[in-house]
Amino acid sequence: MRADKLILQVQVYNSFYKRFETGNVAVLNGQFMYIGSRGLDTFHADEIVEGGGRYMIPGLIDIHLHIESSMVTPAAFSDGLIRNGVTTIVPEPHEMANVFGLEGIQKMMEASRECTADMFYAIPSSVPATPMETSGGEIDIPEIDQLLQTGEMICLGEIMNYVDVIRDPDSKTNRILNHVRKHYPDLIIEGHTPKLLDLDLHRLIYAGIGSDHTHQSIEGMTARIAAGMFIEIQEKSMTPEVMDYLIHEDVAQHFCFVTDDVMPDSFVERGHINHIVRKAVEMGMKPEHAIYAATFTPARRMRMNDRGSISPGKIADFVLLSDLQSFEPDQVYKSGVKVFDRYEEHTSKLASGHFPQHFYHSVQLPLLEETDFKVHIDEEDGVHDCRVMIVKDGSTFTEEQIAPAVVRDGLLQWEEGEYGLIATFERYGKNGNRAYGLIGGDTLKRGAVATTYSHDNHNLLVVGHHPQDMVLAANTVIAGQGGFCVVHEGKILAHLSLPVGGILTEEPLDIVAVKVKELRSAMLSLGYRHYNPIMSLSTHSLPVSPAFKITDHGLIDVNAGRVVPLLVKK
Amino acid sequence: MRADKLILQVQVYNSFYKRFETGNVAVLNGQFMYIGSRGLDTFHADEIVEGGGRYMIPGLIDIHLHIESSMVTPAAFSDGLIRNGVTTIVPEPHEMANVFGLEGIQKMMEASRECTADMFYAIPSSVPATPMETSGGEIDIPEIDQLLQTGEMICLGEIMNYVDVIRDPDSKTNRILNHVRKHYPDLIIEGHTPKLLDLDLHRLIYAGIGSDHTHQSIEGMTARIAAGMFIEIQEKSMTPEVMDYLIHEDVAQHFCFVTDDVMPDSFVERGHINHIVRKAVEMGMKPEHAIYAATFTPARRMRMNDRGSISPGKIADFVLLSDLQSFEPDQVYKSGVKVFDRYEEHTSKLASGHFPQHFYHSVQLPLLEETDFKVHIDEEDGVHDCRVMIVKDGSTFTEEQIAPAVVRDGLLQWEEGEYGLIATFERYGKNGNRAYGLIGGDTLKRGAVATTYSHDNHNLLVVGHHPQDMVLAANTVIAGQGGFCVVHEGKILAHLSLPVGGILTEEPLDIVAVKVKELRSAMLSLGYRHYNPIMSLSTHSLPVSPAFKITDHGLIDVNAGRVVPLLVKK
Repeated sequence: MRADKLILQVQVYNSFYKRFETGNVAVLNGQFMYIGSRGLDTFHADEIVEGGGRYMIPGLIDIHLHIESSMVTPAAFSDGLIRNGVTTIVPEPHEMANVFGLEGIQKMMEASRECTADMFYAIPSSVPATPMETSGGEIDIPEIDQLLQTGEMICLGEIMNYVDVIRDPDSKTNRILNHVRKHYPDLIIEGHTPKLLDLDLHRLIYAGIGSDHTHQSIEGMTARIAAGMFIEIQEKSMTPEVMDYLIHEDVAQHFCFVTDDVMPDSFVERGHINHIVRKAVEMGMKPEHAIYAATFTPARRMRMNDRGSISPGKIADFVLLSDLQSFEPDQVYKSGVKVFDRYEEHTSKLASGHFPQHFYHSVQLPLLEETDFKVHIDEEDGVHDCRVMIVKDGSTFTEEQIAPAVVRDGLLQWEEGEYGLIATFERYGKNGNRAYGLIGGDTLKRGAVATTYSHDNHNLLVVGHHPQDMVLAANTVIAGQGGFCVVHEGKILAHLSLPVGGILTEEPLDIVAVKVKELRSAMLSLGYRHYNPIMSLSTHSLPVSPAFKITDHGLIDVNAGRVVPLLVKK
Repeated sequence: MRADKLILQVQVYNSFYKRFETGNVAVLNGQFMYIGSRGLDTFHADEIVEGGGRYMIPGLIDIHLHIESSMVTPAAFSDGLIRNGVTTIVPEPHEMANVFGLEGIQKMMEASRECTADMFYAIPSSVPATPMETSGGEIDIPEIDQLLQTGEMICLGEIMNYVDVIRDPDSKTNRILNHVRKHYPDLIIEGHTPKLLDLDLHRLIYAGIGSDHTHQSIEGMTARIAAGMFIEIQEKSMTPEVMDYLIHEDVAQHFCFVTDDVMPDSFVERGHINHIVRKAVEMGMKPEHAIYAATFTPARRMRMNDRGSISPGKIADFVLLSDLQSFEPDQVYKSGVKVFDRYEEHTSKLASGHFPQHFYHSVQLPLLEETDFKVHIDEEDGVHDCRVMIVKDGSTFTEEQIAPAVVRDGLLQWEEGEYGLIATFERYGKNGNRAYGLIGGDTLKRGAVATTYSHDNHNLLVVGHHPQDMVLAANTVIAGQGGFCVVHEGKILAHLSLPVGGILTEEPLDIVAVKVKELRSAMLSLGYRHYNPIMSLSTHSLPVSPAFKITDHGLIDVNAGRVVPLLVKK
């Protein structure tokens, strides 16, 4: 009998019994055709792969992630995925949608079509996440309809504004959910339901939300699973307690692993979802169990019925491994074709200029001057109580503190005080908004940093202590049509250009990884204290992240859900 | 908070942890909204149901059955389902398709729309099952396309001709499978893969077939599950070994219970899939486990994502039970509305005449005469070796035996011998085919029986020892436009009229059950030996059932797959 490929003598992962079984595998037309003891006696194969007793597992699957978190294009991302054994992902282009709206999503999908890894897109459902910011694009019902009518979208991405779902029947989020449930009742809807329990949790599920990928506790996980939710475990949820629960309770059907956000250097150094699997095994989960949660259950959650196991008729995406500890693929196959070999040299052939021209001209800002960092105050001169954003090491949480600040000649004399200035400039040419605040805590102590990689609105965000440095950092970013730049005493310490929408580069992951590390070192050298100062900084502008943030609308009291002035009114 | 209905103090079945949990359940807009400890403190409900500590389980689901096996219309079938707690089924109208083709399917679906139970239809894929018979209708690619384009079909029903799939690349079955896989790659395809293992089994799965509902063995079940198949367990598969396996191995995800064929009297006396659940519990399966296989896994297999568990957002189909042994529902609710109460009187309000007029005129045969039971033989007078169909007690298996038979005046002198005559008459007005054979073994010893309820072609089938009785039985059936009639010495012993397509009646199940028992008694009184002589007789004309059958094309050697003559040629 004919086969395209015959893989001999492998330990094949069986997803249905969650165990390895020694045998041979025949592939025909890009699909698994046979798994068992028959081999050369039965099949005439065009190609023989000697398994040599190694492990053969399905291609890994990650159903919740944002490509933009790695700051590269789908092509570079795919390269990174494949070398880590990841053959299918469900990206949600939340950031590109914030910059370019519907077109941002469409162009990411187009850019994904020629990638080796399969990418099935989630519709970003919360763009912008609040009305308290100016974003480049907006996703509402007409855009969602247009996307769903293509038949190409796999789900509605995480509903971030869970508070609105419960509290405000007329909110945009509820309008979207009601519309989707009515017109696309079978659509998968992904969730973001931190800490919710009991009635609030059930109301969200009743509204159609079927999963949660936020930080998990035992109590929360139990409540979610009992109510029919699917749990997506990301690294931050992998506490000893949570892992112990996942290992010992009969809940294998109800969870999978996801990466959500992977920084470029972590991607290169630790890997992708294979890193999560490795870590799960290190924490005591059986490899057979961990593999299940990175192949079978994610495929089923997304109803990708054509993959997720090595069984007849499924797409022949698979990985050959020498051991089940390192989870470093020896070879990776996509639809039966070898696409990565650890023992062969791979050169990334990334094209640039693939996006429409205006994607490379999204920063609609003139070059800044020092006067742009002067903060005019419409109060009389003197000392005023001023709101300060306090940055916390190890967290994206920021706190509001009140400190005295001097106003002289109608200007805030921020350079004289201990706090730095945080400024944001609307950069889509929509309204020219800008906003200022004071910043302290574990942030920069000197120099400046500027970036358009600032969630979710991706306006220009600048933090610093010296107007000259801030101008240089900001203008370097503006001149590069987006990026991330750290400056001290008139010198650029580190710079990553992100010319695609101000948030992506077309360079390969390896190079971006180096530059990201340089950025991080530079920020740390200027006094930033955080395991990931890039993430810390880029969430200062995220008005759904607690508790005190800044957007082009002003300073945001996140818990109150409103803009507050810089000076505390007496 | 508002709720339509609040069910207080019940032991609610949780499908995700497979356990009961005491609590209250709120229903809103026909869907479960909340399950937990909150009650009248939180909800203002239009209606309160006092659970009194009883069990609350999801409405039962049966994903593989043929309504026609119960000889009633969808309306009567739905009545029977609901009183047994079954709220959703996947019927495959294989028999109506054999009689009326595409229109038979469409009219069954139309007749189902106003039923209380939800009926999602499978497309009969094997109509007719072989080219060796004349059926009323045929289902091929154009009919399948037309049905799939409605978006209403839930799956492609069981691929019966598994031999063709493996052996004959150009067979009709492979044409259909190839077409479906190409144009509807995500369509669920149901299977019928008796005893297949290893390569043959994997080839069928590779061809798209994802389930098997035939008789199971441990070895076969293990092979199927390991290859990704879903197992549908019907009563005949519930051997102690199989049940032991299902109880003790970690395979709960991979099987469900189905009824396939339920005779009217069994339906009335034992129930429907609740009978299977009851039996599973009697055989040692935990109720929580058995319920899972009649609610959660069947819903998932058919991707009915809106039901199968009592959890927020799911359709509020549920059953209240006093115990987990009898599985006799106290009350049954469909979409939150009570549709059955054991303590209230229910009168079936069944309409007749709902099908198109020609559905009541499908028996295109003139009344028969005694000459129609004379068997002309184109051989010289004398004793000839003649093929005889030998009926076996307890089985649908029939065997070919060779016996001497006298030919005189060009006629087979069958009345003189020990064997009866079996005759079949094509009844669709297509070609006037008729065929004759001899019959012995555990069949009638005297009198006659005639029926149009004869699988799968449903031509008129007559068995008997006396031409006069055979004429009376046949003509009673013809005059009633189909049915089942037993005659002895010129008297009708039992008669069931089946005027809809010659296979269904519009009477309620209770009445049909009584008549079916009368038919069975009458056949037994005439010497038939079988636990179910109706099933035995009606499969004499089924040319895919081993091993020696009859159709209007002639006597069928099933294993050889060909028509053979009555007389053995020397």
